[in-house]
Order: sequence, then C-alpha cells, then structure tokens
Amino acid sequence: MDPRLVSGPARLAAPAEGITMEELALAARNHGMPLEALREDLTPPGLHYVLVHYDIPWVRPGAPWPLTVHGRVRRPLSIDVADLYVRHATTCRVTMECAGNGRARLEPRPVSQPWLVEAVGTAEWTGVPLRELLTEAGVEPDAVEVVFTGADHGIERGEEQDYQRSLPLAEAMRPEVLLAYEMNGAPLPPQHGYPLRLVVPGWYGMAQVKWLSDINVVDTPFTGFQQAVAYRIRQTPDEPGQPVTTIEPRALLIPPGFPDFMTRTRLVRPGQVTLEGRAWSGHAPVTRVEVSADDGRSWTDAVLDAAGGHPWAWRSWEARWTATPGTHVLAVRASDAAGRTQPLQQPWNRGGFANNLVQRVPVVCLEDGP
Amino acid sequence: MDPRLVSGPARLAAPAEGITMEELALAARNHGMPLEALREDLTPPGLHYVLVHYDIPWVRPGAPWPLTVHGRVRRPLSIDVADLYVRHATTCRVTMECAGNGRARLEPRPVSQPWLVEAVGTAEWTGVPLRELLTEAGVEPDAVEVVFTGADHGIERGEEQDYQRSLPLAEAMRPEVLLAYEMNGAPLPPQHGYPLRLVVPGWYGMAQVKWLSDINVVDTPFTGFQQAVAYRIRQTPDEPGQPVTTIEPRALLIPPGFPDFMTRTRLVRPGQVTLEGRAWSGHAPVTRVEVSADDGRSWTDAVLDAAGGHPWAWRSWEARWTATPGTHVLAVRASDAAGRTQPLQQPWNRGGFANNLVQRVPVVCLEDGP
Repeated sequence: MDPRLVSGPARLAAPAEGITMEELALAARNHGMPLEALREDLTPPGLHYVLVHYDIPWVRPGAPWPLTVHGRVRRPLSIDVADLYVRHATTCRVTMECAGNGRARLEPRPVSQPWLVEAVGTAEWTGVPLRELLTEAGVEPDAVEVVFTGADHGIERGEEQDYQRSLPLAEAMRPEVLLAYEMNGAPLPPQHGYPLRLVVPGWYGMAQVKWLSDINVVDTPFTGFQQAVAYRIRQTPDEPGQPVTTIEPRALLIPPGFPDFMTRTRLVRPGQVTLEGRAWSGHAPVTRVEVSADDGRSWTDAVLDAAGGHPWAWRSWEARWTATPGTHVLAVRASDAAGRTQPLQQPWNRGGFANNLVQRVPVVCLEDGP
Repeated sequence: MDPRLVSGPARLAAPAEGITMEELALAARNHGMPLEALREDLTPPGLHYVLVHYDIPWVRPGAPWPLTVHGRVRRPLSIDVADLYVRHATTCRVTMECAGNGRARLEPRPVSQPWLVEAVGTAEWTGVPLRELLTEAGVEPDAVEVVFTGADHGIERGEEQDYQRSLPLAEAMRPEVLLAYEMNGAPLPPQHGYPLRLVVPGWYGMAQVKWLSDINVVDTPFTGFQQAVAYRIRQTPDEPGQPVTTIEPRALLIPPGFPDFMTRTRLVRPGQVTLEGRAWSGHAPVTRVEVSADDGRSWTDAVLDAAGGHPWAWRSWEARWTATPGTHVLAVRASDAAGRTQPLQQPWNRGGFANNLVQRVPVVCLEDGP
C-alpha cells in the first residue's frame, strides 16, 4: 500500500465547514494554556501549551539517551544526555508559542491543529548552551546550518519521517540557545521532550526540537519536510514561501469575571475591573500594550511591569476599566521595540502561521447585584 | 441583563454538524490523555485528562485555605488545609475518567466538552480519608448525603454557581474516599484542584470536587445544578433521569505503529505486532479483555497482568497480532467481575454520559520495507 494514500495534502476548510473530527483529535491530545494561567510568571508543565507532531516517544526515566554531533565538524561527538548533567548549567526563562496559534479563527481556516489563541506558555529551561558543544566539535568554515533530529516518528503528507528542523549557524551559536534537560527545575515531562530538547528563545515552537538525538552540521541549507514543505508562509500552495522563524508580538488578557460553561462568554458585574495580562515578542522587547473597551475604536495605554531581566519572557501589564451593564468587546494589542504592532485584520497564509491578530474578548456586564 | 441570555440550554448537534467553535474552545483548554501514555502505570499531571468546568481558581502556593465541615454534625469543624498535612496520610492509586468520555463520537452528538475517548488518567492521590473528618464532626443519624463545594465559579444554563456535588453518606464513608492534597507525590497542580480536592475511587470525575472548600452534611437529597440538572442519564430533556455515578468498564489500546499527523491513522509494517493497553471498571475488577483484528467479528482473549494490589486502578493487558498488508480495524473490549461488558452499539443518552462503546482503531499495514 502506498503510504501517500493514508496521508493527504494540506487543505483549507470550506466556507462554514465546522471543525472536523480530525482537527478535534489533534485538539484532544495537544492542548493550549487555559488563559487564566496568564496569572503565573511560570507556566506549570500541565498548563503550558503542548504540540506533539506524531507520538510522544516512550523513554524510560534514566535510560541511556545517546546524542551525536557530526557533519561539518572536526571532532564529531558521541555522548549521552547524562554527560550534559555534569556540565555547568544555564537557565533561561522563555515564552514559547506555537507557530499555528490563532489558526482556527482564520477565514478560510487551514485544516491542521486547530489552535484558537492559547498555544503559549512560559517556562524556565535549564541545560547546556548548544554553542558549547558546537565549539568543542569544531565547526568547519563551510558550515551554514545545523540540523536537529528528534525521536518523534510519523508520516505527514505522504512522507515518513523523524521530526527534523534546522537553524542557521548564527542562530545556533546564540548563547541562549540551549540543549535543555529541565523545565521549571524538574526533568522534562515526557510531552515536553524528555530527556532532551532544543530551546531557541524568540522562535516559534517548531524550531525547539524535542526528544533530541542528533545534531548534524551541514554545508547546504536543509530541505527536509518540516523546513521546506511545512512551516512556510505561503498564499498559494505551489510557491516556495518564506520560512517561519521568530515570534510576532502578541498580548493576551486574563479573562475577566467568570465564564459561561459552554460558550466561555465572560460575565462581570458593574464597576471598576482590573484588566491584566501578558505580552511578548520574539523580535524585540515589548514596549507598549494598548487596551480597548469598544472593540478597537479607541485605545488606552496599559501599564507595563518592569522588564525584570528576562528578555525572552512575556511581560505583564495592567489597565483599569469601568464596566457598565451590557455587552462590550475588549481588545488588547502589543507593540515591540522593533516597531511591530499586532494587526486588526487577520494576517492570513495557507498554513495559518505567525498569525497575531489582536485578541477580542466579548464581555457581558450584568446588572448590579448577586 | 438576564444572565440566562448568555447561557443557553443543552442541545444536540444537527446531523452532520461539524464540531462548533464553542466545543473547540473547551477542547483547547481541557485535554485528554494522549493514548501512548497508556504505557505508564501512573499518568504525569500534564498527560492526565483534565476537565475544568469554569476557571482554574487562582490560589497562591501556601496561602491559607479554610475548609469547613458543617450541617447535620454535632461538632462543626473549621480548619485549614495545612491541618491536614500533619495527619496520617493515605495514598490510593485511582483511574479517573470523565463521565463525558466518548461523547463526541455519539450520533446525535450532545454539544458539550467534545471528548473522543481519551478523557482518562491514573494517579496516586495522597490525603486524609474523608470519613476521618466526618467521624470527628459526628454525623447526625438523620444525615443522608454530603455536599461538597469547590471554588470554581461560573454560570451554566443560566444558573450562576460554585461547582457543587454530593455523595450518599455511605459512599462518603468509604475508607478510600480521600481529601487529597498530593498527586503522584507532589502538591496538586492548579488544574487538578490545588490545594485540596475530593477523590472518590470508582466514580466518574464529576464527583471528585476540586478546590474543595466546604463539606455540608444534609438530611435531604441534594438538588443542586450538577446533581439534578447536569450529570443525569436521560433520553428526553424533561425526564428526571438517572444519576451518573460509577465508571463503566472500558479497555483502550496503546496506538500501534506510528501515526499520520493529520488523520492520526496508525501505520504498521507486516509481521507480529504486540498489542498492549489498559482496562478498568469502577464497578468491580476487570476480569477479561478481548481483542479483535476484524472489527469485532471475532475475538481472542488478551493476557491480563497480575492485579497488583491497586483495586481502583487500571490493569494492563497484552495480545499478539500478525499484521498483513492492507487496512484492518482493531477493537478491544473489557468485562468486569460484576458481569458488565463493553457494548458494540453506542449507549446513547442526551448528555453523552457513561458511554463505553468498544474502541475501534483502524490500522494500515504497509507493504514490507522501510
């Protein structure tokens, strides 16, 4: 049997086509961060968003985990993950977001993991800087990229594969790019890559290869499936497109008041409401967060917290709003020091990648009283 | 504004109606257990299914958490969760399942949290037996039920509420019913009820009130929303229905081979394949697991592991299958010592509760070769 028969091409949903059972099967196993968890500086593993392309590999705690560094290097390395534990450890607080965040709200909707807006989380990752190993291995002058292979095995659009992604050499040599074996001070949970993953602060999640087993330094740009076929920003299916790289700015609101179970509509009571949330960008520090209580017609500046020495993590922000009975649409948008601002119109592409449309939160303010 | 306007009645999906954005919003924040995690005896918190009715309450680690025991008792108690930590601790391994597991595959589909089949997990819960506190408080002879209130606040079908459920007194006095403050040896994660939850081994998840703050012993049956309106097994909307209580038997398969990303279809290569999984029942020990490789036309017995001293936890099972090229539908069904067996036809009700239809897993066996 031809494996392509069981693994079709990417498609867009038809107008008014509901979420399919296939999209639901992805949503049931991968999960976003419930937005009330925006309250926490660090997201616990079970609340941090998680996206597994194929299956979570089965790795027994403490089992050997060989890691190889080879290709265009003078001294190939063949070590075990345990050899990393005895090196000097580096910890970095990182806000990570799935490149497909927001996809399910796009029109037309790319059919894939159907994220609404919650595919994000912030954790402290501990490990060894990748460049330490690359330096020891001795990168040859003709090297251009580094290819990372994880143990996650599956088939996608007809191509059987272990999950693989590359980074340009200059990115791979950034001091904050880590071979991480801990998340928030504990061993990586299985779904976050136990025993070893790559962490690339500022990039979308697809770069941060989990269950990392092989590092290959190459002298031509990598053209594997996840680099050249998936994770490209395209308007038409046949164009080569642009690669998905760095996280676009986004602000999200801690949902105010309390929810309706089924619709998740938020309800508040009249009076002053503190609006709080987080904002981040992989391009540059967030410099401004604006809040609107009239669906984006007028905006006021929120107060940003002190930067806090974590350049790769989200910042919290706060604003006041006086709720009056009726329905309101809150909105929030972030801007960064690179001059980027969240758009009010959807930034559409066929994969639904890097979509940072301004968040809109309908809120119903009840009449006074319990 | 009338809150009922933002919180409608329960409904069934129209024929061929896709999953709605509201169902997706629930699926994106609640999550099932990726079925490959059936490999683990104990499910880590981030892989264990989680269902939060409204919002995860915001509780600072170590903050005071008052707990009251009152109503039809001679000596009402007013303590803090920290007072429980110094008592003798009891640990119980429990397989927990959402009462709505399987709902999204029903026809017609009840519109609610759209579980496929993965709303399950097994954990070791540590805490103090509830009956210890009830005994200290001195239950009056006229008491019939115990009502538990959690801090999860929201609105559902027009009724604003803190999440509340009751247990018959005899159930509440079972020695394995716990006021639990630890999950797998660590403090409860926020989404699993930090700092305190009820654990009722053998019952569906809705009984196991999280963020537990109040215990009220009553002399008439509790008629709150989650007892008398939701979580009833009904064929028509207006009948009172039967309460949802104990977990029906179910077996699930660790997905064999590897998946296609989008369809989640499983692929294997020809030859002998070990089929493994778990089975559980809240009524009585699982006594038999059968496997079919021809969509339920013929069945063979799987080998069950030794019971292992954990009467409230799943059992693992194993069977062999020789895969030949082509498409096959695997199926697996559990039976328990109470004489219950999983049905081959959907056990339908308007809430989609306690639905333990046999799992069917289509598998494509490729031709030989890599």
